[in-house]
Formats: sequence, C-alpha cells, structure tokens
Amino acid sequence: MADYQAPLRDMRFVMYEVFNTDKRWGQWPAIKELVDRETADAFLEEGAKLAARTVAPLNREGDEEGCHWSEEGVTTPKGYKEAYQLFSEAGLTGIGGNPEHGGMGMPKALSAQFDEMFSSASLAFILYPSLTSGAALAIDAHASEELKSLYLPKLYSGEWTGAMCLTESHSGTDLGIIRTRAEDNGDGSYNITGTKIFITAGEHDLTDNIIHLVLAKLPDAPVGPKGISMFLVPKVNVDKDGSLKDRNEVRCGSLEHKMGIKASATCVMNFDGAKGYLVGEVNKGLNAMFTMMNYERLFVGIQGLGTSEMSYQTALEYAQDRIQGRAATGPQEPEKAADPIIVHGDVRRMLLNMKALNEGGRAFSTYVATLLDTAKFSPDETERKQAADQVALLTPVVKAFLTDMGLESCVAGQQVFGGHGYIREWGQEQLVRDVRIAQIYEGTNGIQALDLLGRKITMNGGSYFKQFAGNIRSFLAAGESDEFSAPLEAALAKLESLTNKLIKQAAKDSNVVNSSCTDYLHAFSYVSYAWMWAMMAREAQNQLLAGTEEDSFYQAKLITARYYYQRLLPRMEGLLLSAASGAEALYDLSVEQF
Amino acid sequence: MADYQAPLRDMRFVMYEVFNTDKRWGQWPAIKELVDRETADAFLEEGAKLAARTVAPLNREGDEEGCHWSEEGVTTPKGYKEAYQLFSEAGLTGIGGNPEHGGMGMPKALSAQFDEMFSSASLAFILYPSLTSGAALAIDAHASEELKSLYLPKLYSGEWTGAMCLTESHSGTDLGIIRTRAEDNGDGSYNITGTKIFITAGEHDLTDNIIHLVLAKLPDAPVGPKGISMFLVPKVNVDKDGSLKDRNEVRCGSLEHKMGIKASATCVMNFDGAKGYLVGEVNKGLNAMFTMMNYERLFVGIQGLGTSEMSYQTALEYAQDRIQGRAATGPQEPEKAADPIIVHGDVRRMLLNMKALNEGGRAFSTYVATLLDTAKFSPDETERKQAADQVALLTPVVKAFLTDMGLESCVAGQQVFGGHGYIREWGQEQLVRDVRIAQIYEGTNGIQALDLLGRKITMNGGSYFKQFAGNIRSFLAAGESDEFSAPLEAALAKLESLTNKLIKQAAKDSNVVNSSCTDYLHAFSYVSYAWMWAMMAREAQNQLLAGTEEDSFYQAKLITARYYYQRLLPRMEGLLLSAASGAEALYDLSVEQF
Repeated sequence: MADYQAPLRDMRFVMYEVFNTDKRWGQWPAIKELVDRETADAFLEEGAKLAARTVAPLNREGDEEGCHWSEEGVTTPKGYKEAYQLFSEAGLTGIGGNPEHGGMGMPKALSAQFDEMFSSASLAFILYPSLTSGAALAIDAHASEELKSLYLPKLYSGEWTGAMCLTESHSGTDLGIIRTRAEDNGDGSYNITGTKIFITAGEHDLTDNIIHLVLAKLPDAPVGPKGISMFLVPKVNVDKDGSLKDRNEVRCGSLEHKMGIKASATCVMNFDGAKGYLVGEVNKGLNAMFTMMNYERLFVGIQGLGTSEMSYQTALEYAQDRIQGRAATGPQEPEKAADPIIVHGDVRRMLLNMKALNEGGRAFSTYVATLLDTAKFSPDETERKQAADQVALLTPVVKAFLTDMGLESCVAGQQVFGGHGYIREWGQEQLVRDVRIAQIYEGTNGIQALDLLGRKITMNGGSYFKQFAGNIRSFLAAGESDEFSAPLEAALAKLESLTNKLIKQAAKDSNVVNSSCTDYLHAFSYVSYAWMWAMMAREAQNQLLAGTEEDSFYQAKLITARYYYQRLLPRMEGLLLSAASGAEALYDLSVEQF
Repeated sequence: MADYQAPLRDMRFVMYEVFNTDKRWGQWPAIKELVDRETADAFLEEGAKLAARTVAPLNREGDEEGCHWSEEGVTTPKGYKEAYQLFSEAGLTGIGGNPEHGGMGMPKALSAQFDEMFSSASLAFILYPSLTSGAALAIDAHASEELKSLYLPKLYSGEWTGAMCLTESHSGTDLGIIRTRAEDNGDGSYNITGTKIFITAGEHDLTDNIIHLVLAKLPDAPVGPKGISMFLVPKVNVDKDGSLKDRNEVRCGSLEHKMGIKASATCVMNFDGAKGYLVGEVNKGLNAMFTMMNYERLFVGIQGLGTSEMSYQTALEYAQDRIQGRAATGPQEPEKAADPIIVHGDVRRMLLNMKALNEGGRAFSTYVATLLDTAKFSPDETERKQAADQVALLTPVVKAFLTDMGLESCVAGQQVFGGHGYIREWGQEQLVRDVRIAQIYEGTNGIQALDLLGRKITMNGGSYFKQFAGNIRSFLAAGESDEFSAPLEAALAKLESLTNKLIKQAAKDSNVVNSSCTDYLHAFSYVSYAWMWAMMAREAQNQLLAGTEEDSFYQAKLITARYYYQRLLPRMEGLLLSAASGAEALYDLSVEQF
C-alpha cells in the first residue's frame, strides 16, 4: 500500500483560494486572534506528518488484529495507545473545543482537513477521538456549568474520551422506542439501566475514563421521541476535583464482529444502575443530540472522502507501476514487456472518477464547514441565519453523497488492482470494507435523503432551496461566463424544476417523499459538485491568466472540471426522470408480491 | 439469515414461458431424447433441495473458518467434503458434459439455473465443482481421444475436480507475458515448471485427484499470446487404466487471504518439473481457453445474480420483521410499537431495485444460455451461426453487468439491515464481500467492456449489433403494442445512435474504445434488460388476459416491469452522454497531473 501523503496543496486551494477562509477568520472577532493562515498552515503540516507517519502504518495490522474483549475491559490493537497519546498531545482532541474550558476554538474549515487526513490514515483509529468531540459539543451546549467545568477540560485534552449511547437492539433509526430507563436519585444524580448496542469506543484502553452520553427515559416520560432525556455517565465516577473514584456500573458486554473498521471497538454496553447526570432538560434529549448532529454528519461524510483519497493514492501508484498490455495508440514504454496500466482509458476513467469525486467532495465538505463557521462566528445576524439554513439543507447531502461516492470510489480503487485488489495484504479491499459503515451509521443514507427532501425541502416550502439556488446564481453573475457557466445554469434549472415538481407531488401523495428522496439527493449532489467544480475552475482560470508558477496544478483542475462535467454530471439526467416518476410503482406491489 | 429458497417459479417462467426452452429441446435431435420439461423440473426440484438444505447452511461458517494450508495439502471447512459428495452424487458435476464420455449432456438453459441456485447457497462452495466444468469443456474440445477417455469420465462423475492455471504474479490480463515453461520429454509428455497464482480450487481435500489445465511456453515459442500452449497436469499421475500412481510435482505453496469467498481455496501453485500433456495444438493454448470462456463468463455473471438473490431474500424477510417508525400515510400496524420497515418508500426502492435487477438478470442469463444451446444443438446452420454471434456479443455484457448489479444489489440488501447489515453474524456483509470477486476474475469488467465495444462492436462494423437490434424489433413487431413498446423502441434507437457514433469516433481516435467502453456496456445492458422486461411483461399480460389462477404472480411481473422502466432504465440517459464525450478529458491529463 502506498504511503499516505495528505493532499495539503489541494486543502489549501479549497480553503484559501476557493473559499477565502483565512480572510473570513480575520473578519470574525471571536476567532481572529486565535487563527490565521500561518498558524493554520503550520498546524496542517504537523497533522499531516502525524497522520502519515504514526497513524497510517497502524491501519493494516489493526484490521488483522482487531480489538480484544475480556471481563476486565477492551484492549485496542498494538500501537493504538501510543498513537492516541501523540494525537492528543498534538492538540487534535480539543481542536474545535470551547476555549473557556480548555478547547482550542479552531474553525471547522480547518479541523475538517484533519478529519479527512486521519480518515485516510485509519478510519478505525480516528473514531476513538472523534466521538469525544461530539460528546463535548453536546455537553458544552446543554450541560450545567458544574458538569462542563468538570468534564470538558479532560475531554479537550484527550485525557478522557467520550462515547454516544443511543441505539438499542430493537431501536436504531426509531429512537422513540428505546427502553433504557433513568431513575432520579433525588441528589442531582440518576440511576441508568439498560443495554445499548453499536457503541463506538464504548470501552477501550486508550484512556483512564470514558464519558458516555446516554439516551434514556424517566418513568413518567411521554411515549415516543418527546420522552427521551440525555445523561452523562462516566465509566469511572469523578470527584469534585476531577480525580477518579470508584468504577461506575457500566460495562462492555461484548464486541461486535464487523465487516470492517475492526480496530474500532464497537461495544454492547450494559448500564446496570449506573450513576448519571442530566444533560439539558428532562425529555429534551433529542434536542441535545441535534446540537452535535450537523458536525457529526459532516464528519461522517468526510470519512467517505478520506477513505476514498487513500484508495486513490494507492491505486494511482499501482497504475503507474503495474505493467500489463499496450496502449491503444502503440507501445509507450517499448523497452518493457508491457506498458503501465495508466495508459489504458478504462483505468484512467476509474482514476479520474475518483479524482473528480474526491476533489469535488473536498471542496463541498470545506464549503459546509465554512458555513458552520459562519453560522457560529459571523458578527452579522442575517449572515449567521442564512449560513445555518444552508447547513441544515446541505448536511444530509454531504453525509450521504460523500459516503456513497466513498464506496463507489474505493470499489474503483480496488478494481484498478485487478485480482490483487481482492487480497487482504494489498490493503485496497480493507478500504471498501471500512468505508461501507459510513453509509450506515449516524443516520443511514436513506434517512439523510428523507431529511433532505422531507424536512429541509418540502416542509419549508423550498425556502432553503431557493437560497441555495440563489447562491449559485450569484456565483454565476459575479464572474465572466466560461465553458462551465451554461451547463451549471442548465443543471440548476433542471434541479429547480424537479424540486418544484416534488413539492407539488408530495402535497398530494404522502409516499412521494420517501419514494423519491434518494434519487433526489443524488441529483442535488451532482449539481452541488458541479457548482464546486465551476468555482474551482474559475479560480484556476484566474490564476492561469494572472500567470503562475503552478501552471500544472491549475491546468489539472481545469481538465478535471471538464471531466466532471462530461462524465459525471450527466448521471443526473437519469435521476431527474426516476425521482419524478411518483410512488405508484413502489406501492402497487403488495408485500406478498415482493 | 433467511433460509434460501430457490426461485423455482421464476426460473420456470423464464425458461418455459418466456423462452420456450422445452419446445426448443424437443426440436433439437441431439438433445430431445435426453431432456424434456418433466425431467428438467424433477431435476430442478432436487437441486433446489440440495442447495437449500445441504449447501446454504455451510456458507456462514465456511466464511469464518476458511481453508487450511499445510505441507501436506489444503483442507476445506467443516462439512464441505460431505456436501461435495452429495453434489456429485446428484449428477451435478457432469450435468453439461459430453454423453460420449459419461456427461449428462443437459442444455445450458437448465444448468444455468443450478449455477444460480448454488451461487445463492454458497459462492465459495460452488467454485470447487464449477472449475471442473470449464476444464472438462476445454479437454473435450481440444484434447486427444486418449486424454478424453482417461480424464473426462472422472471429471464428469465428480471423482476428480479440475483447475485452470493461467495467472502469474506479473501476468493477469496480459497472458502474453507468462513465464511458466514446458519442456518436451519426447515421450508424449512435457515437464512444466513455473508458479501460478490465484488458482481457484488448485488444491483441496474434496477429491483424490485434481486435473490442472496449465498455460505455459515451449522454449522456441513466439513472444506474446501466440506462443502459449495448454497442458493437462494431474496432481497425482494417472495410469492407463485410470488408477492413481505417484504424486506429480505440483504443490500448493500458500493460500491467499481474501476479502471474501474465504471457504474457496485460492492457491499459489508451484509446478516443479511436473509431468503434463499437451491439450490442443502447440502455441494454440489461448484458443483452447476461449472454448470455455463463453460458458465460464456466463457462469460468473450468474454468480452476481445468485448472490444478489440470496441478499434479496434475506433483506425481504428482514424488512417484514424489523419494526421501526411509521408509514408516511399513518400507522399500518397500530398494535405494535412501530411498523415493519417495508412500509417505507426508500426500503421498497432498495428491494424493488434488487427484484427488478435479479429477475431481469435471470431472464437475460437464461436468454444467453439458450443462445449457447442453440449454437450447439440447432440443426439449422444459419440459426447456429446467428446464435453464436449473439453469444459473442452478449457474453461480456452478461458477465460484467450481472456482477456490477450483483454488487449494487448486495450493497442495497445490506443497507436494508441498517447497522445489523455491517455485523458478520447476520450474513449480509459476507454477500457483499463474496460477490465483489465476480467483477474481477475471469477477465475484469473493464476487460469485458473492451471486448464488447472493441472486438464485438467496432471490429466487425456493428454487424452483431445490427442482429441484436433486429431481434428486438422483431419482438416488437410480433406482438401488440403495449405500454413498454414505445419506451423500448426509443431506448434501442438511442443505443443504436450511440453505437454508430462510437464506431465513427473510434475510427479517428484509437483511445475512444477504451475510454468509453464501460459506460457503453452499461447503456447496452439497460436496453437489454428493458427488452427482457418487455418480454416478461408481454407474457404476463397474455396470461392475465387468458385468465389464470396465478394472477398475483403475473401482476407482480407487470408492476416490476413498470418499476424497471420508470426507475432503472432512465440511468442510460447519463451513460449515453458520458459514453459519447470522447477521450480527450481522459488523456489531456498527464500522469504527473493525476
């Protein structure tokens, strides 16, 4: 497997050249003293080294070794503890955390790049610290000052990790039917009892304590999602000064055997009267969850991108090394027995699909991260509101599309290897197994599609969509027309027409949204990437016109943009037709007729 | 995991009602005494039981246990030996074999159904006997009478198995550069020396002997593919009376560690002066390979279908059992805490994609099998020739598309399970890992696409394609126009126009074929399935008009046909555009710019 190299040049391109994140940071009072381009770049360099040298080499062996369960707890594969230590020492565990409690307060547009790098290096590894960020976000937004000052500093420093305990065996997507119960001890604490499954990093040996955020129901809670509360349950009870006391009654019953991410401990967690503390208000547990949801879902999308980037780098190296057959135009390396397979059009097609999807995905996820930052840091209330609305609209898109394309891309990267791609030692098949989870967890991609077309489009009469379309048209109006302008405008107009059609259909047939949502999400995504590629191409053209020493980089952007418009954007044509075809063909079939 | 049930009703539907295979058999002198509908049905019933009761239960554990290597040889997982015994006793090892040497001489349209059943039950298992059929085909067509009468009876009876030894570590797709060498002993035997990799069933404990067909080069052989000869190399040398003598110098050096099909022994085979016998003429080894290629590639396509059918059956059962959320139109099972997930449109979409692709794939593979039978058995020379041409055209399509859709479908079947789909014990993720190989081996799907657009379309000026289009138009002209007629005609016309465009482009730019072939193959496939669905729909309509007791079966066919036309056929719109976009965007990028 190729050595991983973080695509720093491309990360800087999307951050600074396409989205001007450094200029934005300078305009936001809450953040301008904390970060500028120079500090961000130094940080990126350090993170890139850690990802490449420390974490990436663990990935293959971690998959073979997996995690180990015993009565005493779970141990992670060889080298994970040391790598986690270095990761937290580098400040990466608290990178986006609240500075009032020891976090670094960095913008998401920056930390998103680390999310990608470490997803490339080892998806199984990055899941340990990443759950901490989510837990800390929920605690910071909803917990009491006492809980915040007790727990946040140690989560940000990486001394402790966090875990999210939502799913039960009968209750995944439908959290309204969870059975875990909480009883009020009358002393500010609760006793939590129940069993949670699929708990990522629910138990491990990386840190001395693990802070669980657990969804549970109080005895008198209303039925359904409005009766869920959130509790903070430490693995080891914590004294008022932050020192560790006795073991709490929360234990890992077993580890799941999975298709991939085998070095990540996916735990069955048993809460047996474990002591916990309410986070946020009684019965408002789902609200507390939603606080972190946008960040978490963006991160899962980026997992798809990161894994795919690793697959691309390895496939590209292989395609240059492996010789097999001759170019259609005649031998390219006649002194060898055959040409490198990158001469073959179908190999180039696979690599260019990956390249166009990865670079488009990097731009798109950085765009959504920038929107999250704008919604959080901008001093302009209107700008904050508009950014928050666009985050709401685009979060399901970034989660589902980057992971769907992540699988497609890793499958292509495996295919480039031919038979060797199917052999474990080469590492390409692991990427396929690992990336597959990202389409499933943190809300399946079907749920994301439902969220997009149901909640974010039809339920608000298309107002978020109008803003989205307006943003694309503003982009088009702000620059000179080029080869991408008319196709982008045309694609947007088609998506607009589909959106309006579906809003009308949905008003008449309540099955339309859940029948057409996935095709709609994909059509929406291809237009979004077309916009990203048009933005990147415009910047590349400007740089080439202005005269640059990096001709080759910018020309590659232009060619890849053309490739995207010629070879990938057309996929939306079929999606427009299928998404508009109504729900009848899905519901005419009785269950017995399936 | 759901118990497997062979889709016998649907198999009979495509065989007898759509393609009238039983009537054809009755018209072919070479076969009419051997098989009729009654014997075929009885055979199908028996095979279905064996697949469901004996083989399917081994699949999950075989994946966990895998095969075991030692100096002495390879052992297969628990239960495999007994299952193989029953499989060969049922006559399934020699089902398509030449009756002159103990084969059953059954038509491919029938044996294709067994290929599907056992691929559903366990892909890893069926690979052991299936390689035997391929080896026997090559021996029957090219070997001397002496070799045939010595080896074929024991291959057909299943007493011995066969293996195909082609690939070397530096030489997969490009067989012209193999290094294994053969030396003439002057006594009618040769000494074979070299190392082959990825040899399915190269070594195992199911039988006492294994007959390898090995590609190797004689010392004075021309460079490249025209210098390859084929040799029969038994694991244990065979006396003239068929009894076993001493061990030959062919041994398994190691087993590959793979993504899936772990119960199938994928061997590195070392030939160390092993005694072998020439099959066919010197330097004509590739011709001997091509004899079996069409059969093998059809079978690999069917592996995609079979695995997908298993995934569908399991996902369908789960979608009816698992309760989560409420139907968009209101609670369907109000007495329960939630509705079964089959009420949700996006779950139906996934299941219907699978159903439409599987039933379309079953029709298509049975059609290609019927063409193979026609080319072999028809007394009419023109009919034989036309059938052979269509086999040549459609073989790469059936291999690549059924396996590409096999992966898509198994991924969908896994997605229906949500988080449980990622857990090994549930079995759905294994199907994804297993089916993935079928896109890679027996010529990668990129090679299939190149074969289709290069050799089968542009190299003969589109004559096979004209025949194909003519067959569809004859079908349309032969029946009354229905809701599928105009869309099928329109889809065909678009494919025709793309085909002509590509033939012209290819004449000017030799990179067009390898750059556009995969998109072309997919567009071709969607039209092919549209034809299959139109045929099935016409038969269903006829049955409904005539009055039938199986209303529900035929109505389901009609609804699924509609689903295919509304939701899957539109995918070709994007493919038409991307396939026609030329090779520039793929070749403008220099290797350094990737």
